[in-house]
Amino acid sequence: MKQPIISIFLSLAALSAAGVENPFDNVRLYERWQREFRGPEGGNPYADVTFGATFINGTDTLQVPGFYDGSGIYVLRFLPLKAGRWDYTTSSSAPQLNGIEGYITCTDQAKGHGPVRVSGRHTFAYSDSTRYMPFGTTAYAWAHMTPDLQSITLSTLEGSDYNKIRMCVMPKSYALCKKEPIHYPFASGQSDTEGMTLTARSGKQFDLTRFNPSFFRNFEQAIDSLDRLGIEADLIIFHPYDKGEWGFDSMPAEVNEAYARYLVARLAAFPNVWWSMANEYDYVKSKTEDDWLRLIDVVDESDPYGHLLSIHGSTATYFPYETTERITHTSIQDEAPVMEPGRAAILRSIYRKPVVLDEVCYEGNLSNRWGRLSGQEMIHRIWNGVLGGTYVTHGECFLQHPSDSDTIMWAEGGRQRGESWKRIGFIRDIVESMPAPIEPADITRDIRTSTGGPGHYLIYFGKEMPESWIFNLPAKCADYDKLKPGTRYKVEIIDTWNMTVTEWPEIMEIGKAIDYRHYDVNNRNIRLPLTPYVLLRVTEVEQ
Amino acid sequence: MKQPIISIFLSLAALSAAGVENPFDNVRLYERWQREFRGPEGGNPYADVTFGATFINGTDTLQVPGFYDGSGIYVLRFLPLKAGRWDYTTSSSAPQLNGIEGYITCTDQAKGHGPVRVSGRHTFAYSDSTRYMPFGTTAYAWAHMTPDLQSITLSTLEGSDYNKIRMCVMPKSYALCKKEPIHYPFASGQSDTEGMTLTARSGKQFDLTRFNPSFFRNFEQAIDSLDRLGIEADLIIFHPYDKGEWGFDSMPAEVNEAYARYLVARLAAFPNVWWSMANEYDYVKSKTEDDWLRLIDVVDESDPYGHLLSIHGSTATYFPYETTERITHTSIQDEAPVMEPGRAAILRSIYRKPVVLDEVCYEGNLSNRWGRLSGQEMIHRIWNGVLGGTYVTHGECFLQHPSDSDTIMWAEGGRQRGESWKRIGFIRDIVESMPAPIEPADITRDIRTSTGGPGHYLIYFGKEMPESWIFNLPAKCADYDKLKPGTRYKVEIIDTWNMTVTEWPEIMEIGKAIDYRHYDVNNRNIRLPLTPYVLLRVTEVEQ
Repeated sequence: MKQPIISIFLSLAALSAAGVENPFDNVRLYERWQREFRGPEGGNPYADVTFGATFINGTDTLQVPGFYDGSGIYVLRFLPLKAGRWDYTTSSSAPQLNGIEGYITCTDQAKGHGPVRVSGRHTFAYSDSTRYMPFGTTAYAWAHMTPDLQSITLSTLEGSDYNKIRMCVMPKSYALCKKEPIHYPFASGQSDTEGMTLTARSGKQFDLTRFNPSFFRNFEQAIDSLDRLGIEADLIIFHPYDKGEWGFDSMPAEVNEAYARYLVARLAAFPNVWWSMANEYDYVKSKTEDDWLRLIDVVDESDPYGHLLSIHGSTATYFPYETTERITHTSIQDEAPVMEPGRAAILRSIYRKPVVLDEVCYEGNLSNRWGRLSGQEMIHRIWNGVLGGTYVTHGECFLQHPSDSDTIMWAEGGRQRGESWKRIGFIRDIVESMPAPIEPADITRDIRTSTGGPGHYLIYFGKEMPESWIFNLPAKCADYDKLKPGTRYKVEIIDTWNMTVTEWPEIMEIGKAIDYRHYDVNNRNIRLPLTPYVLLRVTEVEQ
Repeated sequence: MKQPIISIFLSLAALSAAGVENPFDNVRLYERWQREFRGPEGGNPYADVTFGATFINGTDTLQVPGFYDGSGIYVLRFLPLKAGRWDYTTSSSAPQLNGIEGYITCTDQAKGHGPVRVSGRHTFAYSDSTRYMPFGTTAYAWAHMTPDLQSITLSTLEGSDYNKIRMCVMPKSYALCKKEPIHYPFASGQSDTEGMTLTARSGKQFDLTRFNPSFFRNFEQAIDSLDRLGIEADLIIFHPYDKGEWGFDSMPAEVNEAYARYLVARLAAFPNVWWSMANEYDYVKSKTEDDWLRLIDVVDESDPYGHLLSIHGSTATYFPYETTERITHTSIQDEAPVMEPGRAAILRSIYRKPVVLDEVCYEGNLSNRWGRLSGQEMIHRIWNGVLGGTYVTHGECFLQHPSDSDTIMWAEGGRQRGESWKRIGFIRDIVESMPAPIEPADITRDIRTSTGGPGHYLIYFGKEMPESWIFNLPAKCADYDKLKPGTRYKVEIIDTWNMTVTEWPEIMEIGKAIDYRHYDVNNRNIRLPLTPYVLLRVTEVEQ
């Protein structure tokens, strides 16, 4: 596994070393392009020099921010979401960086699928319209760890079936994650500007008016590595897990905004980036909800591509402005909605945007009650959410595993020790086999039966273990046509934990609706295996 | 019972016949005042003449709409929410109604408690700060029935414990309610204005440019009668139960707005009025969500007092703009959240306003699945909602009761035939005995234990019937201080269905917290009665 990772690092290094003169270029659709410019090095270029460009392709005009990368180098990055010729003109407060023109030719050939978008009321798709259903995990500080540990994490991810990861931009200091990061986001030392020196608990000082390009370059390598693995990077821009360790959670408002702008200027051209404004925003005591709205605006204004954007509260804290247009999807921390599909569906009814339950507790062996689920419970919660028409994020935190160096996947990355991660691919296979997004077939009235398009059902028994089940379907099938008597169905009995699929030998046929339900014409039963977590896949068959 | 009702009718008739000259007057706080003026009778005063007044009391200035009441009489109504002298000056497009001055002296003595307000994130209170927790029922068309049937309904309400009722302003035509109303909101006959004649299915015609004062006077009598019984009138301004019977659900936008304005001008001075913009708004096919927002604005602009305002969707249809400031509280139709307290609490976490579940299905014997709950299930759902920190509305619909003329309480009013209504007062007694609003003690993590202030708990077993319960409380008690070891509690075992309260003979004492919970120092159990719907009231006692 290490081999490809190293090559990823190298390829990015090669990119960074590209010449400063490239007035035009060819790129593929969804492929990041960048050009470097030499500019003023004196004073404080981070604070003093504005730099960006206007990109024009037919009727599309984008304002693209550039950034200072240290050593007199200014970088312009661009992500073409449309083929054709993109003409650009730079603008800058520095005359030598102002008014430089050039163009890029973007081919129809795509590199990957492009950024993920909201594609329907509760659904996502890549820019090329390929359906995308998030099956994420969590590794908050993995990108701040040593290159060796980062490689192990990437290897873990390559061997798993996740397509999203939640990770922090800022380093994390928490009881379960005390390692110093390999880089810091700000330059070391005292600031020339009064009030702009941050002193960490260790005594280390940071100049809040100057960023540290090494920090961001390392972070960018991590994001590119994830992209190679088909994993979306759900980037947590602020979080509360600092509390005086470095002080990055309580910087002046202007620094927060400058940091958000600089981050977006560097990262918006990465197709697999999502913005998560904060983790447990309500625990960041130095910021109000109005501050968060302002920071959301800052990211919105800076990002030319409209990457997905969310904000995440502590348990059962729902951000009150979720309906704000710029928030593309919910990112909820609450396990209450994933106790059964019918509860998750309540959120789906409330929010007219995709509902992502990004924290529902984690598989693990911690004493903290949020980190001690069994693998079965973790998977059960994911199924509940998915069958309710929402999305649920995985995480695992096993501490002091005797046979290995001690890293918690959820915190620092590393290896996985749980059982739930092995089932993510199986869930994806079943869910992705449905022709339409999953939703309750008969909202509120039937919490067990979900549909994935006409003639496609998933019926989940969760922790109930009935000996048999009288074949029946609700007369209502979401907003699709009502069921027709005489329709025939095959049934597969799925053991979601043991990942087995067993086809029931008989084909069922429904009669007319009786009290909102259709039963098999012969009132036949399906015998169930008397094990928990059984799911039935019911599929219409040809007449 | 009939006697007081008749006297209410008479007193209002007396009020309406009051002289047209009363330049000043004395009223009590929260007491409706009105003055009548003679004005133009020719043409169409409803459409042609504007009329209202500015009321000033110190720094308070209110724009109060007046209305035309037919026969050349223009009426100004006012509800003083502040004592002192209120000076007013009329304004009108008719010179003889313009610039008339007068004043009212409002005493400190209050008449009743005044309008209900939102008093905290999830709570209501009357204007005089008295706590108000809605325990409503539903009788959509009761005020459109004959005076005899209205009297029976009022008698039913007087013998019940409701403090709110959901009722439609417009008449209702529905499979279960086909009676013609005693009055119509618009004048009979053809309109002089093109496109303003509405033809009902019966052939009857209405002039949409002229209101029918008799309709509104009858309605006002009903609201006053409710006020005497201490019942808030949650008025449903629009609804879909028409579908061409009269056509009131699909009038031109200008008529909808004129109707809303006229209604508010007449009724805003009634202290017990709430505005419910619509029932099942999404079933009103002639209006979009933007139309509803516009109509909400119209009511908001017209109402000088800021009465409570909500909008109500069909099952599991949540209005997407619930966070709009003008919507004071949610009015939800969905039974999914009242299956257990922990589900209702999800809504409470999401909405930063009081959560009222105004339809969770009804007790009854209909074949429709929304109208066939047992009494037990109705009460169980109310408890679940209440213990989750929300409010739940009752309703009952029994059809073809053999021993009585056939009216369904939920539709036309009349007598109650169910069992659940008898338990509303018992719920209120318990809930109102709590010193603080009810909320989950340990949100999301414990769905059984609610607190009503420090040292006060309600622990609900619902349909579970354990033989005994190990006394224990969560270490967390909402946002109050954590529990202290050594605290002692008495326990009452409440049978919520049979309405019995039995005190457990022992006093419990908690030890130190073990894994987020405090147990009795002697690990004592409470023996439970092995019946469903058991609630424990746990109350801290003196050391």
